[in-house]
Amino acid sequence: MTIKPLEDRIVVKPSEPVEAKKGGIIIPDSAKERPDEGKVISVGKGKTLDNGQLKTLTVKKGDKVLFAKYSGNEILIDGEKHLIMREEDVLAVVE
Amino acid sequence: MTIKPLEDRIVVKPSEPVEAKKGGIIIPDSAKERPDEGKVISVGKGKTLDNGQLKTLTVKKGDKVLFAKYSGNEILIDGEKHLIMREEDVLAVVE
Amino acid sequence: MTIKPLEDRIVVKPSEPVEAKKGGIIIPDSAKERPDEGKVISVGKGKTLDNGQLKTLTVKKGDKVLFAKYSGNEILIDGEKHLIMREEDVLAVVE
Amino acid sequence: MTIKPLEDRIVVKPSEPVEAKKGGIIIPDSAKERPDEGKVISVGKGKTLDNGQLKTLTVKKGDKVLFAKYSGNEILIDGEKHLIMREEDVLAVVE
Amino acid sequence: MTIKPLEDRIVVKPSEPVEAKKGGIIIPDSAKERPDEGKVISVGKGKTLDNGQLKTLTVKKGDKVLFAKYSGNEILIDGEKHLIMREEDVLAVVE
Amino acid sequence: MTIKPLEDRIVVKPSEPVEAKKGGIIIPDSAKERPDEGKVISVGKGKTLDNGQLKTLTVKKGDKVLFAKYSGNEILIDGEKHLIMREEDVLAVVE
Amino acid sequence: MTIKPLEDRIVVKPSEPVEAKKGGIIIPDSAKERPDEGKVISVGKGKTLDNGQLKTLTVKKGDKVLFAKYSGNEILIDGEKHLIMREEDVLAVVE
Repeated sequence: MTIKPLEDRIVVKPSEPVEAKKGGIIIPDSAKERPDEGKVISVGKGKTLDNGQLKTLTVKKGDKVLFAKYSGNEILIDGEKHLIMREEDVLAVVE
Repeated sequence: MTIKPLEDRIVVKPSEPVEAKKGGIIIPDSAKERPDEGKVISVGKGKTLDNGQLKTLTVKKGDKVLFAKYSGNEILIDGEKHLIMREEDVLAVVE
Repeated sequence: MTIKPLEDRIVVKPSEPVEAKKGGIIIPDSAKERPDEGKVISVGKGKTLDNGQLKTLTVKKGDKVLFAKYSGNEILIDGEKHLIMREEDVLAVVE
Repeated sequence: MTIKPLEDRIVVKPSEPVEAKKGGIIIPDSAKERPDEGKVISVGKGKTLDNGQLKTLTVKKGDKVLFAKYSGNEILIDGEKHLIMREEDVLAVVE
Repeated sequence: MTIKPLEDRIVVKPSEPVEAKKGGIIIPDSAKERPDEGKVISVGKGKTLDNGQLKTLTVKKGDKVLFAKYSGNEILIDGEKHLIMREEDVLAVVE
Repeated sequence: MTIKPLEDRIVVKPSEPVEAKKGGIIIPDSAKERPDEGKVISVGKGKTLDNGQLKTLTVKKGDKVLFAKYSGNEILIDGEKHLIMREEDVLAVVE
Repeated sequence: MTIKPLEDRIVVKPSEPVEAKKGGIIIPDSAKERPDEGKVISVGKGKTLDNGQLKTLTVKKGDKVLFAKYSGNEILIDGEKHLIMREEDVLAVVE
């Protein structure tokens, strides 16, 4: 059973909050304004521009992404929390 | 008697809420923010873009879809509750 | 005396609410969120798109349509209540 | 002395409210939501679309029109109340 | 010293309110919703459309115009009150 | 050290308010609704239109401009107050 | 580990507020409306315009920029506060 997001939407599995990893990106649970991190599980086919052209997505399956808090809709896949959001909610890819 | 939705609208028959199906997508009745699931009954011809081009729909009759809660307008067909919504309210197709 | 709606507007004669027709579309008077039903009396010539192209209407005279409650402006023709609305207020054609 | 409305604006002389004309369009003074009726006195040259093309008006001098209540700006010509409104405020032409 | 309005802006010198001129346009000081009248002093070069095309103005220096009350920004030229507004605030030219 | 404004932004040095200069533009400190005056210090390269075309600015370094009160963001250059604003906040050039 | 901002976003490391540097740009901590200063750490590939064309960014890695207060989302890289913002939040480049 797979979830195929429509248009420019992606499915993201949010990471567990890591409290104080030195030398990495730390997103303390208390910092409400800081973005969340997650892994891209699946991506849509892209967004249709006003001129009818399809703009495919930049992020791809497996990417580690930062996204603004409270982005997207929450769904459960095999009992685990995932998020469906638009690619524009993704701030950056972490490499 | 059939309902032919206009433009980029679709008719969806919402699924019965399944409380705790292991290994599947669970949408508990209490989780207000989680999307609903349903089956596509009929689809419109598509949306006319600004350049006059017709963009046909991605979802098709029979698709199982996830859509944001409170999407669309409720209608009764043969006494059963259905929803008419725009395709952009559909988050993903479940396969 | 005829009413010629402008642009993408249509004139609709709303149906009498039918309380519990089995096997059909039932729109109880108490269900405020459910769409209304009506018959198209006349249609405009269409909407001019941003590129100057005319997009004619999909619905036509005689069509039975569903439209969101509180759509359009009420007028009286020969003493009977009619509605003038834009075609985008029409959710579906009933056949 | 003439008033030449700019762009897609028109000058309309509102009709006297007719209280209960049988077989015609009745717009009782008490029905706040019903549109008003009037006669087109003069029309602008049209609206420039995003592509630079001029879209001339559909209504013309002498047309009897229905327009949403509270449309336009009120002016006095020779002591009589007139309205300047955009053509999109006109719902229909009455013939 | 001259004021050259930018883009689709114009400089207008508002007329003195004339209280009851018979056979003309009367704009009593008490009628808040009625448009004001004025004379165009200078005009901008025009508005750049989305396609890069320049749309020059319709009104010209010397035109007597009607504009919605409270349009534009007030400036003083040689001690006299003038208004800078966009051409879309002009309802009509009076001839 | 120079400030290079981005896109269609400009840097303006606001003039000292002149209280009652006869024969000029007077902007009393008490008239909150009147525009402010200033001198253009530097300008951006222009705004990219929807069609990808660059629209360069109309105002240029050295121009004396009128702009709506409270336009732009305040910065200090060499201890003196300047404003960064978009060109659309400029109402007119004074010559 | 690097952060690759998407589209027209950039990563900025905000400068320490300098309280009264003579001959430079002073941004006192108390002046809430004044923009902040920072250094560009990385930039996205650009923004896709409506016509499908990619508009690359103007600012580049290493640029010293002014941006409106409260722009962007805060993230921590190696324990230090950074901001992810869109290029349109950048007011000017300081040279």
